[in-house]
Amino acid sequence: MSKQKKAVVLVSGGLDSATVLAIAKQQSYRCYALSFSYGQRHVSELVAAANVANAMGAVQHRTINIDMGFIGGSALTDQSIAVPEHASDGIPVTYVPARNTVFLSLALAWAEVLESSDIFIGVNAVDYSGYPDCRPDYIMAYEKMANLATRAGVEGHKIRIRTPLIDLSKQEIIKTGLGLGVDYSQTVSCYAADELGRACGQCDSCRIRKDGFLAAGADDPTIYI
Amino acid sequence: MSKQKKAVVLVSGGLDSATVLAIAKQQSYRCYALSFSYGQRHVSELVAAANVANAMGAVQHRTINIDMGFIGGSALTDQSIAVPEHASDGIPVTYVPARNTVFLSLALAWAEVLESSDIFIGVNAVDYSGYPDCRPDYIMAYEKMANLATRAGVEGHKIRIRTPLIDLSKQEIIKTGLGLGVDYSQTVSCYAADELGRACGQCDSCRIRKDGFLAAGADDPTIYI
Repeated sequence: MSKQKKAVVLVSGGLDSATVLAIAKQQSYRCYALSFSYGQRHVSELVAAANVANAMGAVQHRTINIDMGFIGGSALTDQSIAVPEHASDGIPVTYVPARNTVFLSLALAWAEVLESSDIFIGVNAVDYSGYPDCRPDYIMAYEKMANLATRAGVEGHKIRIRTPLIDLSKQEIIKTGLGLGVDYSQTVSCYAADELGRACGQCDSCRIRKDGFLAAGADDPTIYI
Repeated sequence: MSKQKKAVVLVSGGLDSATVLAIAKQQSYRCYALSFSYGQRHVSELVAAANVANAMGAVQHRTINIDMGFIGGSALTDQSIAVPEHASDGIPVTYVPARNTVFLSLALAWAEVLESSDIFIGVNAVDYSGYPDCRPDYIMAYEKMANLATRAGVEGHKIRIRTPLIDLSKQEIIKTGLGLGVDYSQTVSCYAADELGRACGQCDSCRIRKDGFLAAGADDPTIYI
């Protein structure tokens, strides 16, 4: 067997991370898919994540449970905060405090044990400009910290945070994924999806996704409530 | 009521973090104590953490469960790796991959929701020089990342990672804690403690602790098996 590089890929069940997994796969990584159950409203995401990981040939898929629910502070984990139908100025209420930092940190732990140097995450600075932890400056600072945090940093086996979508529009992401054979009907993007993964069609995430398929000139396979 | 500053304090149940909690309290912070159940062998630590938080007047104490066990890679979480009785060169097998990064990240999420700017952690670069995530360079890089990761960074409410023990010897830590009224009989440091929190007396952590009490000229309240 050829000695393929390993990558840890954060897979949420959404459109972006499914595309990232396809990109990592195309770059010949053996992919270790990682998902989180963190009290999100939309648990149908987790079913989608398992389906996507399986369809894309991930070597393993693990879901880590973290009881972040008590921390609250986001419309995505706190039932008392409504998911808005329209974008607002500043940081959206759907922002989950330090979410990418928590997810990357557990990915880093797994990468270290797997002796993998590459962690893939589907952050995007175009559509999610209001989320502090989707910005390139943040990713660079995370990578620097990660190399000081681990055996890798001490022993010279450098960790890279790979963000292949960071500068792409939704349209470009969809075109890339379709070119790599991603089946977007398996993915769930909606912030308020029902237990079957059907989308509300109204939230920010639904509107960005819908506009993306339209702009890409592709059929939208999303099933709406 | 005066408007006291809030701090999130990582409390493991060990000697160091009990001292940190006492220091944060002395600096007039309202302390939110945070512990983790992450598959560590020594669960008596968690009982100790609750007792310490209570004794030191923490406003809240929460324990987050994370199933990091599958990640493995450390003698502290993997039953197939023996806890060594003697220090070795390089990074010890008791190092848990990315542990401080994972813990600080969940502390960061909580701090953000509490609108706290201060996270206290009992890292120490003297006795734990072999752990990459106990070094000052790492802490500085983490702090920089944290300020880019959060609303704080975007909205100018700066996050600080407080490491009051980083340059202290065990003797100095113990003297500081005793001066602040810490009851070290409540703390568990042993890597292989039994369910009652009794210490093995043989592992690195036990030896460092024992020598610390001796050097401080203080009674060692540890109960050994």
